[in-house]
Amino acid sequence: MTQTETVSKPVVVTPEQLLAHWQGHRRLTRRMIEAFPEDQLFSFSIGGMRPFGVMAWEMQQVSALTLTGLLSGEWPEPNWRGGVSPDRGELLSAWDDLTAQIDREFLKVDTAFYAQQHALPWGEMSGWAAAIYCIDNEIHHRGEGYVYLRALGIEPPAFYER
Amino acid sequence: MTQTETVSKPVVVTPEQLLAHWQGHRRLTRRMIEAFPEDQLFSFSIGGMRPFGVMAWEMQQVSALTLTGLLSGEWPEPNWRGGVSPDRGELLSAWDDLTAQIDREFLKVDTAFYAQQHALPWGEMSGWAAAIYCIDNEIHHRGEGYVYLRALGIEPPAFYER
Repeated sequence: MTQTETVSKPVVVTPEQLLAHWQGHRRLTRRMIEAFPEDQLFSFSIGGMRPFGVMAWEMQQVSALTLTGLLSGEWPEPNWRGGVSPDRGELLSAWDDLTAQIDREFLKVDTAFYAQQHALPWGEMSGWAAAIYCIDNEIHHRGEGYVYLRALGIEPPAFYER
Repeated sequence: MTQTETVSKPVVVTPEQLLAHWQGHRRLTRRMIEAFPEDQLFSFSIGGMRPFGVMAWEMQQVSALTLTGLLSGEWPEPNWRGGVSPDRGELLSAWDDLTAQIDREFLKVDTAFYAQQHALPWGEMSGWAAAIYCIDNEIHHRGEGYVYLRALGIEPPAFYER
């Protein structure tokens, strides 16, 4: 894979910055998973929505799919219900394994992939859009989790701390 | 302002893609503002959090600050309480004005600004980090709004539609 494009395009963000951005959000989400009372993480709900632990497993699966897809060009649909245990320890263990894998592998992504179109399970989009959608989806559901925590009377971790 | 850097750096995202990304999120947030019952937009709350309309005004102010800052290098703290009316029509009117302004002006941002450090009211950060923080903040609070809508028995607009 080529690591550098030599075209003269405006640089908005480098892969290193995007990696730091992603990992900052993953650290915050990890603190959210820890902030829930263990007996509420996979049960507490408002308005019929999924518990936060279930959303966190989805973030984890989307993140794994995104890393694999950017590295390989293959975007197989995850087995959404497979290996999704209602157990915080298992969730955090899988979370930390993927965090380490992202650190090891993200900068190996062929930067040409970001401009190319890819067939994701949820539609055709550029590699850039796929990467940012993954992070946006995490921010979105984590924001939902903030309301759950407040409804439980718990102060969530600060959004701006990464 | 120079519109193009000729350094050979990996291209993750172009200004045009970042603009489309930002405007896609603004369209979704606008649909959220419209989805609330008018009498709940500035009053409904869970867990002592702010009503969604108040959060939306904050998004609007942060977005205006970010556009101005990227264009001028000046990042004055907004008057958070000034001009923040609990009126959906005024909110949507201001929202649409800023959307048009972003369309007109965002691509005039000197792309060198994205790598430079800027003194924002909430800390020192790169122009890229400032731009993405603005969008992330909107996604985060909008996610909170999704729970409010569900708690009110209303189906929110689809997250993936922009």
